[in-house]
Amino acid sequence: MKFEIKKKLDGTLARAGVMTTSHGIIETPAFVVVGTKATVKALTPEQVKDLGAEAVLANTYHLYLKPGSELVKKAGGLGKFMNWPGPTFTDSGGFQVFSLGAAFGKKVNKISSPETDYSSILQNTRIVKEAQEAVGELAKIDDGGVTFKSHIDGSEHRFTPESSIKIQEDLGADVIFAFDECTSPQASYEYQREAVDRTHRWAKRSLDAHKNKNQAIFGVVQGGRYKDLREESAGVISEMGFDGFGIGGSFDKEDVYSVVGLVNSILPEDKPRHLLGIGEPADLFGGVENGADLFDCVAPTRIARNGTLYTRDGRINVLNARFMNDFSPVDGECGCYTCKNFTRTYIAHLFRAKEMFAATLASIHNLYFIVNLVKKIRQSILDENFFEFKERFLARYHFK
Amino acid sequence: MKFEIKKKLDGTLARAGVMTTSHGIIETPAFVVVGTKATVKALTPEQVKDLGAEAVLANTYHLYLKPGSELVKKAGGLGKFMNWPGPTFTDSGGFQVFSLGAAFGKKVNKISSPETDYSSILQNTRIVKEAQEAVGELAKIDDGGVTFKSHIDGSEHRFTPESSIKIQEDLGADVIFAFDECTSPQASYEYQREAVDRTHRWAKRSLDAHKNKNQAIFGVVQGGRYKDLREESAGVISEMGFDGFGIGGSFDKEDVYSVVGLVNSILPEDKPRHLLGIGEPADLFGGVENGADLFDCVAPTRIARNGTLYTRDGRINVLNARFMNDFSPVDGECGCYTCKNFTRTYIAHLFRAKEMFAATLASIHNLYFIVNLVKKIRQSILDENFFEFKERFLARYHFK
Repeated sequence: MKFEIKKKLDGTLARAGVMTTSHGIIETPAFVVVGTKATVKALTPEQVKDLGAEAVLANTYHLYLKPGSELVKKAGGLGKFMNWPGPTFTDSGGFQVFSLGAAFGKKVNKISSPETDYSSILQNTRIVKEAQEAVGELAKIDDGGVTFKSHIDGSEHRFTPESSIKIQEDLGADVIFAFDECTSPQASYEYQREAVDRTHRWAKRSLDAHKNKNQAIFGVVQGGRYKDLREESAGVISEMGFDGFGIGGSFDKEDVYSVVGLVNSILPEDKPRHLLGIGEPADLFGGVENGADLFDCVAPTRIARNGTLYTRDGRINVLNARFMNDFSPVDGECGCYTCKNFTRTYIAHLFRAKEMFAATLASIHNLYFIVNLVKKIRQSILDENFFEFKERFLARYHFK
Repeated sequence: MKFEIKKKLDGTLARAGVMTTSHGIIETPAFVVVGTKATVKALTPEQVKDLGAEAVLANTYHLYLKPGSELVKKAGGLGKFMNWPGPTFTDSGGFQVFSLGAAFGKKVNKISSPETDYSSILQNTRIVKEAQEAVGELAKIDDGGVTFKSHIDGSEHRFTPESSIKIQEDLGADVIFAFDECTSPQASYEYQREAVDRTHRWAKRSLDAHKNKNQAIFGVVQGGRYKDLREESAGVISEMGFDGFGIGGSFDKEDVYSVVGLVNSILPEDKPRHLLGIGEPADLFGGVENGADLFDCVAPTRIARNGTLYTRDGRINVLNARFMNDFSPVDGECGCYTCKNFTRTYIAHLFRAKEMFAATLASIHNLYFIVNLVKKIRQSILDENFFEFKERFLARYHFK
């Protein structure tokens, strides 16, 4: 893997670059589309490519459980298995082991905002508490690794840094991640300190276990919401000789950008940085401005399947009664397949009729929206009008 | 609509023709793909076209209930609503009013075979009995029309020949059908006699109500499993001046072909005939040989969604354990998108992981298989080797 910076934006950490993998290039900043179980839900690989995506990230945890990483290896690796010819990523399995094992991953945002949404945080606290109690049963951490129970059938499994890397080598993606511990956003400082140290030891073991040099390996910076831990983690992970970096875990909404900026000001400039699991428009601007090159997030496709669609003015839910009689496209300024060919009325009908094609059309639109937003952010770096573009976009886009 | 016969096969009723509609041509015999609720389930219109389909049939009953025929009219009609630029058909609503209202439509085959599957017929008899009792509640027939309850919310509605035609005019398909009564396969001769007479009166009223001459209207021949009623119905419907004909209702497996042949020997030769709701390979050969030009059936997509796939050797269910390690395509001789790009292993994985893309890949394959089988049957008429092709195909294809 090669990474070349084409342009840096003065006074910020933002940069436009090109990552070259053996399966093609990724122009960064880029949004990597999530294909959890070796399929971008409801889409063909051609639809994924046509909407502008350059790379797909699949989940190690899911593929390990089903259909098994050895089967994927036998099929020729992830890309060949799912017929995606472009660059591929797999995560370390860490996030899912903790979140799915504990069943709170879906409900706790990676960026928490107690001020703006008090009731949701209250609810989150309850969910996290329940989840933490559940973790006791579903996932047991020791210095060697994590023993966890499958969310599918309760069967017991164990991930270690060595096994995570072995599984990811079998899956055969172009970019793999070191095994890390993902902590709850509510974890204490003491626990975060312990966990970040463990993540560093696991990073070293992941690197030592990594044999297939055709795969780039990214080390993951953790540290939760604590700036000193983030700073320390960035420093430690920087020194290990990884090909790139992931920034994992959760953040406080109020200082997500400053923490990401802090981390990226420490990480070596000549290697790519992946802000894991983040993809809301405002966060993409904030992430890029603070030095992130890669993003991935399930939100665009997950909310799509519930009828929530991005527009220039913010999200809409197409199941709202007024869209049943709205013969305009989802977003009149959008160039995606869905907007060029179908009306809000039709998409609303498909959702109400519980037709699968609803998920396809909505996912194409949302991914196009996000993937191309990041492409436009990239272009604005090259054109030196990043801030104008950001202000114009965010002035109009209202997160609801 | 124009219909031109290009070639007749000596000693049979089979013919190859071309139907011309204002939205394009259909080379007959042809399999018309079912898009029940204005979407061919899990597929884009482009995928439908690419697999070889020339026309789509939507269901009047479903679209009347959701999203409503007036909304579809406002959207510019069925084709524009669903972005299908080719020829479209709508059925009369009759079949669904009786079958879905009574909830037995999914379980009673249109072709019954008491000899070959005794247990299933026993079960069918029970289901039909229950269904008939339910009909008492859900659908009430009088000479004016049918009062029925929605299978969605139980709300009461009424279809008459006049309202069925009005709804179909709003939906705006190229080919519409006269409103008919679909009887249970178990109905007595006396009831069938009464129903077929009513269907004839309704056919006349449908024709009188039909104002939009841009839409072709097909009359429906009924009569169940009784040859004398079928003969009479073919004669009566022939005389009314329809643009083409549907052959509806159910048949005994042992004489389906002779009954279809009998009907088609009476229907005027210069107009197209649509064998409604039939689509198994052997029945396609039998139907064509006995003078049918058009077919439609939900089976290829419905069984696809359960993992059942056509191959040259018969059906397989890809959820069978042995396919998890089978890296060959569904059918090695198939040229469809699915077979060119994906393995049985991958499709099995998608089904096991409950991924929507499974339905897409399976539906593309099954529709390609059936649509192109009918195209090959057509070619064999033109090439005068229909019987060789039929024997070769059926010797290898085992219906399981």
